[in-house]
Amino acid sequence: MKNVLIVKGHFIYTKTPERFEVYESSCLVSVDGKVEGIYPVIPDRFKGCPVHDYGNRLVIPGFVDLHLHAAQFFQSGIGMTKQLLDWLSDYTFDLEREFQNRKFAREAYTCFAEKLVACGTLRACIFASSSTAGTEELFEVLKEKRIGAYVGKVNMDRNAPDFIIETTEESLRGTKYLIEKYQGENRVKPIITPRFAPTSTPELLKGLGDLAVKYDLPVQSHLSENMDEIRWVQDLFKGAKNYSDVYFKNNLFGQTKTVMAHGIYLDDDEKALVKKMDLMLAHCPDSNINVRSGIMPVRTYLDMGIKIGLGSDIAGGHKIGLNEAMVRAIQLSKLLNLENDKLKPLTVSEAFYMGTKSGGSFFGKIGSFEKKFCFDALVLEDDPMIAQRYSLEDRLEKFIYAGDDRNICARYVEGKKL
Amino acid sequence: MKNVLIVKGHFIYTKTPERFEVYESSCLVSVDGKVEGIYPVIPDRFKGCPVHDYGNRLVIPGFVDLHLHAAQFFQSGIGMTKQLLDWLSDYTFDLEREFQNRKFAREAYTCFAEKLVACGTLRACIFASSSTAGTEELFEVLKEKRIGAYVGKVNMDRNAPDFIIETTEESLRGTKYLIEKYQGENRVKPIITPRFAPTSTPELLKGLGDLAVKYDLPVQSHLSENMDEIRWVQDLFKGAKNYSDVYFKNNLFGQTKTVMAHGIYLDDDEKALVKKMDLMLAHCPDSNINVRSGIMPVRTYLDMGIKIGLGSDIAGGHKIGLNEAMVRAIQLSKLLNLENDKLKPLTVSEAFYMGTKSGGSFFGKIGSFEKKFCFDALVLEDDPMIAQRYSLEDRLEKFIYAGDDRNICARYVEGKKL
Repeated sequence: MKNVLIVKGHFIYTKTPERFEVYESSCLVSVDGKVEGIYPVIPDRFKGCPVHDYGNRLVIPGFVDLHLHAAQFFQSGIGMTKQLLDWLSDYTFDLEREFQNRKFAREAYTCFAEKLVACGTLRACIFASSSTAGTEELFEVLKEKRIGAYVGKVNMDRNAPDFIIETTEESLRGTKYLIEKYQGENRVKPIITPRFAPTSTPELLKGLGDLAVKYDLPVQSHLSENMDEIRWVQDLFKGAKNYSDVYFKNNLFGQTKTVMAHGIYLDDDEKALVKKMDLMLAHCPDSNINVRSGIMPVRTYLDMGIKIGLGSDIAGGHKIGLNEAMVRAIQLSKLLNLENDKLKPLTVSEAFYMGTKSGGSFFGKIGSFEKKFCFDALVLEDDPMIAQRYSLEDRLEKFIYAGDDRNICARYVEGKKL
Repeated sequence: MKNVLIVKGHFIYTKTPERFEVYESSCLVSVDGKVEGIYPVIPDRFKGCPVHDYGNRLVIPGFVDLHLHAAQFFQSGIGMTKQLLDWLSDYTFDLEREFQNRKFAREAYTCFAEKLVACGTLRACIFASSSTAGTEELFEVLKEKRIGAYVGKVNMDRNAPDFIIETTEESLRGTKYLIEKYQGENRVKPIITPRFAPTSTPELLKGLGDLAVKYDLPVQSHLSENMDEIRWVQDLFKGAKNYSDVYFKNNLFGQTKTVMAHGIYLDDDEKALVKKMDLMLAHCPDSNINVRSGIMPVRTYLDMGIKIGLGSDIAGGHKIGLNEAMVRAIQLSKLLNLENDKLKPLTVSEAFYMGTKSGGSFFGKIGSFEKKFCFDALVLEDDPMIAQRYSLEDRLEKFIYAGDDRNICARYVEGKKL
């Protein structure tokens, strides 16, 4: 007998970026964790199956966060007067060091995971720290939470304090250990994670690319976030054509599925390569302005057909709720529009699409309520005064702009209530 | 016998924008609602007085919101794809109309006031709606909440839908009625509030200026928010030198104390006039980007000695917590800095100063813990993991960036706990 669940409520999701699909007072049928369909009434063949009735509440796909650092969670909103490289050395590395202690790692990652899930993120691409033991704790914590994630031990073998870098061999050995331990896991899986080019020797990058190809694993890293960083990469990797090329040459740029955070200052060759290799870019708007990196030219990239999802980038970004990233992405696109009216601002549905179906595509059929998609969902509770006055789309917009975890009253991953 | 209260905790405030004053584990003595001093231990003469001991918690001045629309609270975060003038006609006016109904007004203003106070705003300059009866309800609701506020019936006698404009005489008569009823009140007081130049006839502006001067009342309105609006003002008021001059000629521009929201696109004459007339500008960063108005050149204005406070601008802004306005002001200043590195980004203490002492100066001795200032305060509760790791300033920064009303565990206005 199949595992059937029927959820009743108002369903909103984005099949395409241009518009919301809205199903008022409907019944979604989930079979074995996958969406079977959305119907006006329960089809005869599903009569008698369990029903979760949410009445006048909205049901939307769970959020997908394509870029955040679990080990920086405590630091969210601290040290925000610094620019990227100073911020790392003055605040971040000291905190990341503590994750070598399993007990601390377990406790801190539990705080992180609870808030992440509370805020509605049900799939995420996560950087842990350079500690293999600490990263193991993160795998375990996330498995307990039952959300989906790619988790990366952060690989660094130079240009960071001694207390958090490893030798090339240690870094690769720890990565391999985690791959072999967690590769078979269902929802929490390993991802190859060089921190970024400047903290990696060419040998480390090569070793990581080899692992990605050998085990057919996805890759995540940082790309072209900041002009100082780009110049630093050019100095360190003299033979490379550009920043992207450093990863590309090492099988870390789309040879297996790859998500790169930021990508603000890509040159034309890099944009073409991103597109050709079918990369996913993680747009992290709060982080980009907090550490004064700049604004990603999202509309330009979208027009070129580049795939973009959203990242909270905890702790360059200060808010873990992905709805905040949607709002900031829209706000920054409006600023670009004020400078150049050909660059149309992002709409609410476009930002929502980026934070659900587009980001979700990195995980598979995730982030939509179309047939065969995993039933990952959030149930939203809003004020009765709002619910009675406004349309379903307005109510969703209000949650995105002004809501928080208190407005999420239930969460589902693959058809199971968390 | 005087009314003495002693509060123990860590005190942080800004005497000047440049830096935080930090008093670790100290005792603040409030006498008759005013700060007497902050001491390492309770002075002998105050021994035996009541003590509220907040241990390891931070105590900061209450927030001062210089610009928001109480009647738009329900609309926060809705209709954000529109620009200013469309947003008003498509969403705002219909909602404001409902405040002609006293029962609705009481209910909606109660929701508004509860959230405002929860989020830490203890003084505010508030636009109600054009309804005299509705505005009366707002006075009553705020008096019950015991916070301080200037409340304005919104004056409009043209260029808005018939159902919310009044005749010039009705608008002035209702304003006068509220002035005479509430002028003697202690903390919730009337303020002259033309919505903005375009919805006022010259006769209405003149009548309002006369009332301001006659009763020595403060004035609030909107100024130079958007280029279309500026052109509209030029068309409507042919004889005026510029937008500011329309208000100035009518005694609505500093002849009594005046706060103007936005002021993004001031020409040199206007800037000089703003400074000369000692105006306060309310910077509303979220609103300015949501409705695509632009970015106020805050650093330039500050360097000229123009006074600036912060406004949430509910519902052009979508977040009522003034800490969000501080963050967005910093973020936007960082974007201006990326374009021109001579424009230094706002620091955390500068943004905090704008949202406490600078805005507070519009109300009197408000927004600081210096001697003789009203003891308006918020007590912050943070996670023990954060409290043990970070400095007091870091903990405050974290609250500003990543906190919300759940982190405020007590509120004081003029020495009394709410």
